[in-house]
Amino acid sequence: MPVIDMDGVRALGRELSNWGRWGDDDQRGTLNLIEPARVTAAATAVRRGVSFSLAMPADENGPHDLRTSGRFNPIHSMTRYRGDTPRGEFMGGFASAEDMLIIGTHSSTHFDALAHLWYDDLLYNGSHHDDAVTARGAERCSIQNLASGVVSRGILADVPRHRGLDHLPPGTGVGPDELDAVLAAQGVVPRPGDVLLLRTGTYPRQRRGFDVEPGRSPGLTFECARWIRDHGIAAVCADNLAVEVLGANGDGPMIPFHMLAIRDMGLLLGEMFDFEDLADDCAADGVYECLFTASPLNVPYAVGSPVNPIAVK
Amino acid sequence: MPVIDMDGVRALGRELSNWGRWGDDDQRGTLNLIEPARVTAAATAVRRGVSFSLAMPADENGPHDLRTSGRFNPIHSMTRYRGDTPRGEFMGGFASAEDMLIIGTHSSTHFDALAHLWYDDLLYNGSHHDDAVTARGAERCSIQNLASGVVSRGILADVPRHRGLDHLPPGTGVGPDELDAVLAAQGVVPRPGDVLLLRTGTYPRQRRGFDVEPGRSPGLTFECARWIRDHGIAAVCADNLAVEVLGANGDGPMIPFHMLAIRDMGLLLGEMFDFEDLADDCAADGVYECLFTASPLNVPYAVGSPVNPIAVK
Amino acid sequence: MPVIDMDGVRALGRELSNWGRWGDDDQRGTLNLIEPARVTAAATAVRRGVSFSLAMPADENGPHDLRTSGRFNPIHSMTRYRGDTPRGEFMGGFASAEDMLIIGTHSSTHFDALAHLWYDDLLYNGSHHDDAVTARGAERCSIQNLASGVVSRGILADVPRHRGLDHLPPGTGVGPDELDAVLAAQGVVPRPGDVLLLRTGTYPRQRRGFDVEPGRSPGLTFECARWIRDHGIAAVCADNLAVEVLGANGDGPMIPFHMLAIRDMGLLLGEMFDFEDLADDCAADGVYECLFTASPLNVPYAVGSPVNPIAVK
Amino acid sequence: MPVIDMDGVRALGRELSNWGRWGDDDQRGTLNLIEPARVTAAATAVRRGVSFSLAMPADENGPHDLRTSGRFNPIHSMTRYRGDTPRGEFMGGFASAEDMLIIGTHSSTHFDALAHLWYDDLLYNGSHHDDAVTARGAERCSIQNLASGVVSRGILADVPRHRGLDHLPPGTGVGPDELDAVLAAQGVVPRPGDVLLLRTGTYPRQRRGFDVEPGRSPGLTFECARWIRDHGIAAVCADNLAVEVLGANGDGPMIPFHMLAIRDMGLLLGEMFDFEDLADDCAADGVYECLFTASPLNVPYAVGSPVNPIAVK
Repeated sequence: MPVIDMDGVRALGRELSNWGRWGDDDQRGTLNLIEPARVTAAATAVRRGVSFSLAMPADENGPHDLRTSGRFNPIHSMTRYRGDTPRGEFMGGFASAEDMLIIGTHSSTHFDALAHLWYDDLLYNGSHHDDAVTARGAERCSIQNLASGVVSRGILADVPRHRGLDHLPPGTGVGPDELDAVLAAQGVVPRPGDVLLLRTGTYPRQRRGFDVEPGRSPGLTFECARWIRDHGIAAVCADNLAVEVLGANGDGPMIPFHMLAIRDMGLLLGEMFDFEDLADDCAADGVYECLFTASPLNVPYAVGSPVNPIAVK
Repeated sequence: MPVIDMDGVRALGRELSNWGRWGDDDQRGTLNLIEPARVTAAATAVRRGVSFSLAMPADENGPHDLRTSGRFNPIHSMTRYRGDTPRGEFMGGFASAEDMLIIGTHSSTHFDALAHLWYDDLLYNGSHHDDAVTARGAERCSIQNLASGVVSRGILADVPRHRGLDHLPPGTGVGPDELDAVLAAQGVVPRPGDVLLLRTGTYPRQRRGFDVEPGRSPGLTFECARWIRDHGIAAVCADNLAVEVLGANGDGPMIPFHMLAIRDMGLLLGEMFDFEDLADDCAADGVYECLFTASPLNVPYAVGSPVNPIAVK
Repeated sequence: MPVIDMDGVRALGRELSNWGRWGDDDQRGTLNLIEPARVTAAATAVRRGVSFSLAMPADENGPHDLRTSGRFNPIHSMTRYRGDTPRGEFMGGFASAEDMLIIGTHSSTHFDALAHLWYDDLLYNGSHHDDAVTARGAERCSIQNLASGVVSRGILADVPRHRGLDHLPPGTGVGPDELDAVLAAQGVVPRPGDVLLLRTGTYPRQRRGFDVEPGRSPGLTFECARWIRDHGIAAVCADNLAVEVLGANGDGPMIPFHMLAIRDMGLLLGEMFDFEDLADDCAADGVYECLFTASPLNVPYAVGSPVNPIAVK
Repeated sequence: MPVIDMDGVRALGRELSNWGRWGDDDQRGTLNLIEPARVTAAATAVRRGVSFSLAMPADENGPHDLRTSGRFNPIHSMTRYRGDTPRGEFMGGFASAEDMLIIGTHSSTHFDALAHLWYDDLLYNGSHHDDAVTARGAERCSIQNLASGVVSRGILADVPRHRGLDHLPPGTGVGPDELDAVLAAQGVVPRPGDVLLLRTGTYPRQRRGFDVEPGRSPGLTFECARWIRDHGIAAVCADNLAVEVLGANGDGPMIPFHMLAIRDMGLLLGEMFDFEDLADDCAADGVYECLFTASPLNVPYAVGSPVNPIAVK
């Protein structure tokens, strides 16, 4: 795989930059590519009326460990699970149960806000990090800019199935040529505004006990940033840790694709998805497009949000 | 308004019961009414390609107070908002921000799981509460049964606009006749599988400083349960505290509609929605239907989930 | 080691019972043994004016894992770590930092409230669990009954040092005879109101990477309950998971000492302590007594509390 | 009351500075004044063997509101309150209850770490804030530096009782002369290493429904900083929001005493204490000294900690 150094990221970032493309105040980035006509066209992908969750379970069985990764798995706790009175009887005629969730916004299936990552002190569209991200959260580029949801055509790229594998081995990079090959074999022609759903087969396996080697997660190579720009892709969602391949850039920046995607292109990234059921269905009926619909929680100032994206076919 | 006592609830519950209707093991209740053909039909409601969030902001400015209501407003907290090194520089070439959310599942815009409420020791479809809801959470009827999302036609009933009001006054009950009148005036014919979106104008006002008198929240009368059953409505979502009118049942059970809806009918309820933008749009174009899409977080054993539902027109 | 079955626990529990001993309304149990004269006497143990923390660090490096033990390690999170303005400058002349803690009350060094454990539906002093412990917490025997703190003489029993070991091997039971032998060798005569500090050398090692085999934690045998009753010990604190030896009672109840201690005797238990520094000091000066002072957080209805107990010599 | 501007704070800070006094690496500040001989002397204040909690209840009834003060009251939540099996029976012979606490470290009775506040980019003893306080927390001057506890003589200054009042009115400043007068009237001579317990009667009233006007909290004037330095006081704890009087410094810095105390002097501050029971006892027996003992939770990197301080007489 090719590697890229910091100056290379800066140069490629300038080339692929969407800063100013949708105005100097824009905070939505490539979601602007989902024009109304794309939404109405996407709705026609609903043919059979079946839906698939693309989310992993958000619970303690996730891949995180605060000791090593700086993130903790979601904590779900019941706050009431009997009736309202000491004896479990009911007050006002009923009994009820309530619960709470303590969740890092990037710890299960989630979207990254454009304020999640930056370099050289500037965020997407030029905000300085001192102004954009404070103790209160994202003053610019927060997840609230996605509050009205991501509704567009989703196209699945089932890379391991195309390779004849159950899942991609750790460290596997998926480049532009392979994206082209997989999509072509699946009969999918990418269109502007599409949401690219990249299946690597990684995280769903973590829950079944596989060692997914998070530091060597398979995923996109940084060169895919140009492919995504050229095809007008509005968002990329993957079933791995960070969309891109990890541990493959030698002495260069750790996650060059992220740097280009989030900061220069304003590209929406979704991570830790689960495409297993959708992929089986696509393989069965040969249709790799869907109506993709996902919405972050409407949390002001947040730099990410857990989501449960839905694919409708 | 009519009132109903506990025996009345029991009798009406038996009449409207959906127990066994979709099998003895069913945990999805009225979502079964959203058959595939309803989903494909709902997709045709996407005409202009515009989307609306139906969620209130999930933050500290909500209506809760642990001292009085037993619930707390969502807490959003940044866990990192500078670079990865002490001086705010970047490690591996980038800087990033992360945050967490501490949220009661019923404290902002949310869906109730069918395990959220019961009476006479039995939950929807006959599970005993000792088996169904434990310290771990809902062993039966958890929110995970909605993981593949709610995708159907949404129909807005804009009651205050029909009455020529900004919002319904506290204590206002909306009965079956008014539902019929509002929908007819709006040109909407309810169909099986529809999601009824009941606008009262309540909670969006709370954020603007109005005293919404939570104990007297306007909403549906218990008699609407039969109307909902008769029309095959799959879910009811409202912009108030509890869908139904509160403080209006005299000495009878406090929330008879909830008891009938969740426990006897297995009806999905959504609460604390915000229909302001959608309602303005519907009033402007005269179209009161949409593609409604919403999905709870995929939290095992949860008895509710925050959601950000999207209406697409 | 001897084993005990459920009927044996019940019989021994009746024999050792302190129910009614300090009145029918008592919720403090053996803390009543710390009479004022014991406190003043304990203060005379302060000879050199040196203090030792007996707490493990309360952080993510603890022994818990929600996946396997049902408990999570404490989560500490900064909520502000720069100045009050976006640029890190100060408002009103200063900058400040704040943080929060998400902590299970039994997940680090802690006291058990007497409401933490019971059997046969009754808690210490006869409260029925339906009345005593509800969704709100402990209506009886909560940790608030210890709010004025535990101030008494502490006596260290350094069992591994007496055996010539670094730490007790997993599964080691410490019985009454060994307690007598260790204390005698150390020159300590137990007195009523004393706090017994049992060193096993277990948990401090967990933080240094040792596998402490939590299910086989070394500790007291159930027979020590009688020894504790006979000597008028007011509290037992240990540097293991559960004070008592685990995995050593065959087909009998899992933690018989807990059942006898908390429910029948009303004995205060402290767990996951760290005696390493204190023990080194005691070995050096030959003085195994101290002024022991510890206070739970003043949390109403709590069934436990993290503590940082202090030994003063 | 006199006011002080930023330059005045800087000048007075230099005059009162303890930087370097206990070495260039010191992170404990005035706790160094509690020499061993002070601890042994303090133990002689234990005469009657009675203890008093100096902590407010840590629960939802505190004074905070995330909407207005940026802090939330402690959240206590049961995580299990029935037996371990669905039917409330017991597994392994027993039933148990557990709970968790979500608590801002400065939201109830607490100690401020020396890393809690600074100005002109430098913390106590000269650390630069970029090095000292990061996303991980306090790399310097964390609360862990107090892990072995604060054990010394406590002296109560019951200002409202001396004035013949129930509590000090909002905005009341207590200056050095009044401290002298109150202590003299109480027969207390301050000694180096003492912990000054300042009673204003403020926060205990908040829980009884009084409007305590947090922005005008009564407390020490900034001039007391010199008095404290001169008398060698090791810590100051008060039953108000911020030890010092608030809203009384005109256009100058908001909390000049904090700036001098924490950053320049390295003085330990305790806030939101409750001295009601202790004060009644002192008034009754005429003895205003006690053994003061308090220890923060042993949380690495924390900038504060909830505490339950104990006064023993």
